[in-house]
Amino acid sequence: MTIEHPYLLFLGDAADPLAAKTAQGVAHWRPEWCLGQFRLPGCRADIGLPDMTLEEAARAGARTLVVGVANRGGVLAPTWVAALETALRLGMDIASGLHNRLGDVPALAALAAEHGRRLIDVRHPTRTFEVANGRKRPGKRLLTVGTDCSVGKMYTALAIEKEMRARGMKADFRATGQTGILIAGDGVSVDAVVADFISGAVEWLSPANDPDHWDVIEGQGSLFHASFAGVSLGLLHGAQPDALVLCHEPTRTHMRGLPDYGVPDLKVCLEANEAAARLTNPAARCVGISVNTSQMAPEAAADLLARISDDLGLPTVDAFKDGVAPIVDRLI
Amino acid sequence: MTIEHPYLLFLGDAADPLAAKTAQGVAHWRPEWCLGQFRLPGCRADIGLPDMTLEEAARAGARTLVVGVANRGGVLAPTWVAALETALRLGMDIASGLHNRLGDVPALAALAAEHGRRLIDVRHPTRTFEVANGRKRPGKRLLTVGTDCSVGKMYTALAIEKEMRARGMKADFRATGQTGILIAGDGVSVDAVVADFISGAVEWLSPANDPDHWDVIEGQGSLFHASFAGVSLGLLHGAQPDALVLCHEPTRTHMRGLPDYGVPDLKVCLEANEAAARLTNPAARCVGISVNTSQMAPEAAADLLARISDDLGLPTVDAFKDGVAPIVDRLI
Repeated sequence: MTIEHPYLLFLGDAADPLAAKTAQGVAHWRPEWCLGQFRLPGCRADIGLPDMTLEEAARAGARTLVVGVANRGGVLAPTWVAALETALRLGMDIASGLHNRLGDVPALAALAAEHGRRLIDVRHPTRTFEVANGRKRPGKRLLTVGTDCSVGKMYTALAIEKEMRARGMKADFRATGQTGILIAGDGVSVDAVVADFISGAVEWLSPANDPDHWDVIEGQGSLFHASFAGVSLGLLHGAQPDALVLCHEPTRTHMRGLPDYGVPDLKVCLEANEAAARLTNPAARCVGISVNTSQMAPEAAADLLARISDDLGLPTVDAFKDGVAPIVDRLI
Repeated sequence: MTIEHPYLLFLGDAADPLAAKTAQGVAHWRPEWCLGQFRLPGCRADIGLPDMTLEEAARAGARTLVVGVANRGGVLAPTWVAALETALRLGMDIASGLHNRLGDVPALAALAAEHGRRLIDVRHPTRTFEVANGRKRPGKRLLTVGTDCSVGKMYTALAIEKEMRARGMKADFRATGQTGILIAGDGVSVDAVVADFISGAVEWLSPANDPDHWDVIEGQGSLFHASFAGVSLGLLHGAQPDALVLCHEPTRTHMRGLPDYGVPDLKVCLEANEAAARLTNPAARCVGISVNTSQMAPEAAADLLARISDDLGLPTVDAFKDGVAPIVDRLI
């Protein structure tokens, strides 16, 4: 179910730039796949790509219209349907990370069938998986884990893939969430897999590879998140990571969506992840800390990174501001 | 989706007594719900209930035919369908824990619709769940956890419910697997829930209750099982257990289905479960060990129970041979 590129990024009538953050992520990490953006009247987002009509994009070779926008509720807006219909008629597939399925809109299902195009709902796995077998497979694996949800696990994984490739290392980002799948063109939304198959889905996602090849796997949730830790643990076991990178957002006052739950201590979180990872890979170890300091003043951020690095004895970076070179150094 | 009783237990053409172990479990734990057994020619199982024809059972008031047999592969055998059709015509629902769905047999689906009867596939959740909110809810909860799969977690939970009720305590077994659901008449097959909702499903399964009421929740898998630990952790967090009972099968040489994985040390396993449980219930503690010694000589079994009890400082029983009174004592 690989999503074909080049992409045309659909921004719809995004109410603000944040509503188009999926499109922003795709454009940032896969600029070579993105021909342009297509916006409806009233759109208040602009991700800096050329504006194209659907017809222009089709002529330029666009293979997939990527719905890179979320409105309130994360569902498909009725005002978007006409444009999606046109894209199908022009020969594009449509890929979406929204909650509801493209194929549940009868007009889209009918047109896709008529024109032989695909409606790709990356949130909904389209295949079944085996139960995990736990067997060691060749190749190296790095997994980003977190103190909480939405602390930069995808960003950090993509930054590490980029840094590794820049150094000539063999590396592939492996996506486990909606935006990641649109960026990678493939992957599994692990939180949407049936519970019995979480680890098996990750074994499938990150198969045997060359001994010097790194799969850089996007983590989900947190072992310390009371709603989602089961997903995080199944992902950790299926990934059999050689290396963990712990991601953190230091200004958060409680776990995301759980006002009564505090954020775990970094060292406690690191050790819990290492201990759990060692069930399927006894060599698993944390190789770095990735801290999102975007909400902090520069000096305070620098102090914090230094302190964490001292406390844990690990390279500690803000992946967005500083890159991840010190973490990749540690792997070599 | 409560399964109505009384039940008629369908043993089909079970190849041996083990093939009818689901029926055996239902008859053992809910004798008051079971009118009799219905067997096809060639059936080599007998669970000791009166043999009844479908017509006799219908006249006696049977509400549900429970498919309490598994053949190789755990799927519905074509040779069973005629009997299931007759049961529907006679006004019974059908409940099954098999892998394939009753409703996928067109003749059964049509007859059920025609007669207004229900086809209940307990392996497949029929409702959606919320994401877990992690909020503390009234009532007490006990969860059975395990060193491995299939070590007696359901049996132990049912034995504890029975012991509590015998003492006049308020207690309800909460089923999380197929056989447990057929025994309880209700429940959620947590390993079949979409991963994001594991903990939420358990919060739903074990709602707020009287402060002196115990939900005795059936555990699944093991935190140390490389295929299923995600399910176990999500269940542990959703259950918010006050009390844990650790179940163990001491003769096992490796984890079930995973020849390369050893069984965890009891103390390590106990501490890992307590630590994980304390995320959602800081008061969680292990209150006893339940050891299945059926594969051991009596003297060796007695020695082992004594040694474990000494090592861990907890009541240690074989729930099948000795009951669980010492564990329930510990709770009071």
